[in-house]
Amino acid sequence: MTAPDVVARLVAELGDRVDVSDAGRAAARADKSGQAASGSPLAVVHARTVEDVQATMRIASATGTPVVPRGAGTGLAGGANTGAGEIGLSLRSMDRILEVRPDDLIAVVEPGILNGQLNAALAEHGLWWAPDPASRDISTVGGNIATGAGGLLCAKYGVVRDAVLGLDLVLADGRLMRLGHRTVKGVTGLDLTSLAIGSEGILGVVVAATLKLRRLVPGQARTIAATFSDVRSAAVAASAVTAAGIQPAIMELMDATSLAASHRLLGLPAPTPGASQLTVQTDGPGATAEAEAVVAVLAAAGGTVRLAADDAEAQQLWTVRRSMHPAMETLGTALIEDVSVPRSALPAMFDEIARIEERFGLTIPTVCHAGDGNLHPNFIFDGDEVPEVIWEAAEDLFQSALRLGGTLTGEHGVGVLKRRWLADELGDDQWELQRRIARVFDPAGILNPGKVFAP
Amino acid sequence: MTAPDVVARLVAELGDRVDVSDAGRAAARADKSGQAASGSPLAVVHARTVEDVQATMRIASATGTPVVPRGAGTGLAGGANTGAGEIGLSLRSMDRILEVRPDDLIAVVEPGILNGQLNAALAEHGLWWAPDPASRDISTVGGNIATGAGGLLCAKYGVVRDAVLGLDLVLADGRLMRLGHRTVKGVTGLDLTSLAIGSEGILGVVVAATLKLRRLVPGQARTIAATFSDVRSAAVAASAVTAAGIQPAIMELMDATSLAASHRLLGLPAPTPGASQLTVQTDGPGATAEAEAVVAVLAAAGGTVRLAADDAEAQQLWTVRRSMHPAMETLGTALIEDVSVPRSALPAMFDEIARIEERFGLTIPTVCHAGDGNLHPNFIFDGDEVPEVIWEAAEDLFQSALRLGGTLTGEHGVGVLKRRWLADELGDDQWELQRRIARVFDPAGILNPGKVFAP
Repeated sequence: MTAPDVVARLVAELGDRVDVSDAGRAAARADKSGQAASGSPLAVVHARTVEDVQATMRIASATGTPVVPRGAGTGLAGGANTGAGEIGLSLRSMDRILEVRPDDLIAVVEPGILNGQLNAALAEHGLWWAPDPASRDISTVGGNIATGAGGLLCAKYGVVRDAVLGLDLVLADGRLMRLGHRTVKGVTGLDLTSLAIGSEGILGVVVAATLKLRRLVPGQARTIAATFSDVRSAAVAASAVTAAGIQPAIMELMDATSLAASHRLLGLPAPTPGASQLTVQTDGPGATAEAEAVVAVLAAAGGTVRLAADDAEAQQLWTVRRSMHPAMETLGTALIEDVSVPRSALPAMFDEIARIEERFGLTIPTVCHAGDGNLHPNFIFDGDEVPEVIWEAAEDLFQSALRLGGTLTGEHGVGVLKRRWLADELGDDQWELQRRIARVFDPAGILNPGKVFAP
Repeated sequence: MTAPDVVARLVAELGDRVDVSDAGRAAARADKSGQAASGSPLAVVHARTVEDVQATMRIASATGTPVVPRGAGTGLAGGANTGAGEIGLSLRSMDRILEVRPDDLIAVVEPGILNGQLNAALAEHGLWWAPDPASRDISTVGGNIATGAGGLLCAKYGVVRDAVLGLDLVLADGRLMRLGHRTVKGVTGLDLTSLAIGSEGILGVVVAATLKLRRLVPGQARTIAATFSDVRSAAVAASAVTAAGIQPAIMELMDATSLAASHRLLGLPAPTPGASQLTVQTDGPGATAEAEAVVAVLAAAGGTVRLAADDAEAQQLWTVRRSMHPAMETLGTALIEDVSVPRSALPAMFDEIARIEERFGLTIPTVCHAGDGNLHPNFIFDGDEVPEVIWEAAEDLFQSALRLGGTLTGEHGVGVLKRRWLADELGDDQWELQRRIARVFDPAGILNPGKVFAP
């Protein structure tokens, strides 16, 4: 069947839910990774119901047309990029909250709702869904699930996988599978819910999710900022906080380049050259006692420490961290990386980043979720195209993280950006095993082909 | 190849690790479910190393001989029962702690270590592994992982799936796969670690696990006991605790029959006829404040409430709950069931149990992890063989749990006991999908055949 025939079938069955405009199709080529598919897709289907998704998949299956599921397009690994010959399948318009059960601490939602919108609605019930990617105000719950997103609060409150009980998944052939359960415990058969989380659209299309909620944490959170003479000292201090048995809600590390860039953007006095900063939040009934313990550990580790007296001062301290990404844009184009290492290996990983900067003559400003060992090195370059030297440096970064017992990606996913290194972490045997499992869900390989597993 | 040839090959390669004695083989026929395989296995291999496991699997693969992995044999679903023509593969002797990293909050262990032994060793570091099945002193970590075990603390501290970062898995053909990671976050490829958890030995043999640890909870735990005139009132009161936003560490419900049997066994005065009991523990820095809040909620719900003044009194209260299983043995033979429902459905599920008792003329004493909605109805009968009427009543129980949005098994697994109902929960499509996934790991179907999926 020709491409025009496929589009005609989609339009015949789905009418105005099918966007064939040049602008609409071009918009589906990219996410926020800085990468874009070559060419535009055949069409973008804006599904409003489960049946729309099933109809799209049935047509795709019947015609052998690849489908790329998509949320708000905020991914950082190119996992939702949709190219020539493919159908984009947007879940963004399926954004209803189907059910909130405060007594069972669960909510059932459609995938297209923004994380921030969901949490605003849950707050009215005194509840929240813990996963908090930095993109929470612009990224969808379905996208969070597809990437297995993390965030700032993970060390204390867990990642997406800890916060999803069940998923409704439409398979490549259009069949709907209800995975998981509504109960706290459940071990009936294989855990396909966990398998689907972080699978980046290659197993099926998430059309509903049963989420495990928490009650809002009572009490006033406290914020501490501490500066250190260099990034290694800051990393050692962060490890000392964990080793002291304190569990902060958030612990963020900014290296010297990113700290200086944020200060410049905000018009604040320049920090001491080389200075790096830890910003820490404690919460819950013991927030103040824990904050004082953090202050003591950081001071003993050589930090210049400040405990915010009130919420206004705390917000000021967090503004510096939150300005990191806009500040990066003032330096050039940024390829945002995402490796994770065991917490004790943080200082060594910063040594590796310094070595890589030196070796390749690059600047790699880095922020780090220091409470869980997840680093975001930003490779800065000029222009739109990632230069080959950046890929070489990234390769060195990945190999360094793996040597330190770490992983290629903590929370962004593999997408197209990291597929060529996937087998380095998994080994060839496991790579092949994983691909065969994906084929059980999608025998013809029409779901997000070329993502995660290199073609 | 004949059975004697298979045994000869095992002995030739593994020597004294192969137990061919009648007693050793007979012991592998059963777990603690009350069920046993018909006939004894060919042999039981007591693996001491990963290589032993690989050698066993290679011989099994080459000869097409089924293998049943086994820990301490404390399972309650028959998942480790090993019968005629099969090889038992015991991991119990692989019981070393390979690594404890307090700074990274991880431990790497062999599968055969007992949960209680591990936690005793971790306590010296101020750490613990949260999963706490009631069998913790006699069950292995590998068995906990294979069944996806729960326990008493799950509502607050999570289940096994929340507490495992990585697994080393030997496949049916003897290849070793290293799944998962050592980092808090990691989304590289499909999450085969989660898939293997709770897979009951049908995907591979767990030979090492990287566990996510917690720091010991500081402060003195507090215990509350409350009696109610009937089990429904106790269930409503338990839901009221959750709905009030309190998160107890433990919340256990005993119905009238189990409470009376425990009192009788312990020589305590008989409770008021019909009386049911909730026993609740709060912990952490806010333990006392939370305990007082629990007391208020339970009193308002009509309970006669007692807050233990000290640890000795608390232990006394817990002794009643802990005596449940020995007390059941005084009533007859018990088939211990394990359904889970959303917490709000607990009162309705107790109504169903009362209906089933009435319909089949049975006594079904029930305890319940009320904090997470997991019930253990005990079907009491005479003799060794489960009478057909008990299976009919169990079927009614399962269908009732499913109607209430629940699941067939919260923490014991499917094994042989529940395989005939698996498709009722999953649906035929998902049942088939799951079986195909298992076949990717084990194409010839030699790993624990007949378990989970009916033959």
